[in-house]
Amino acid sequence: MFKVNEYFDGKVTSMAFEEATGSATVGLMAKGEYEFGTDKKEIMHVVSGELVIQLKGEENWTSYKTGEHFNVDGSSSFKLQVPVDTAYRCQYID
Amino acid sequence: MFKVNEYFDGKVTSMAFEEATGSATVGLMAKGEYEFGTDKKEIMHVVSGELVIQLKGEENWTSYKTGEHFNVDGSSSFKLQVPVDTAYRCQYID
Repeated sequence: MFKVNEYFDGKVTSMAFEEATGSATVGLMAKGEYEFGTDKKEIMHVVSGELVIQLKGEENWTSYKTGEHFNVDGSSSFKLQVPVDTAYRCQYID
Repeated sequence: MFKVNEYFDGKVTSMAFEEATGSATVGLMAKGEYEFGTDKKEIMHVVSGELVIQLKGEENWTSYKTGEHFNVDGSSSFKLQVPVDTAYRCQYID
């Protein structure tokens, strides 16, 4: 019923669904380091755990924990350091 | 990497992971009506969408929306009416 997508050999697994405001995914990231590219602008919510991120073109790394969220520009990318298995929700903004 | 579980012909799909405080799942429920039994006590968080629930032994139905959560006793059950595809997180409490 829901499309399950796997990245980085399954270390990141997400499921796609539609919200009233547009497309979204909910998923899990295993402890590790990743980099993702973006097409649309994204709002990333930490559902449970922690994501430490570096946005493209920025020097600093910022930590986001359960209940917090951050924005990523469209046609961009961001690096993540994931200190613990983390659940997230991603909203894609047209 | 993460175990994906499907219920009700895939209309409910969840992924299991470990939080600092214990086992949890994150998942999606398609629009529809369901009933789940519980072993351990559960804390159900609405990540995105809405869950209208009736706890075992209760008459009333209560709506929980994005950002809200509810508790379900262990060794019990609860009915759900899901008006829109909904993302949820479930914490299992020892």
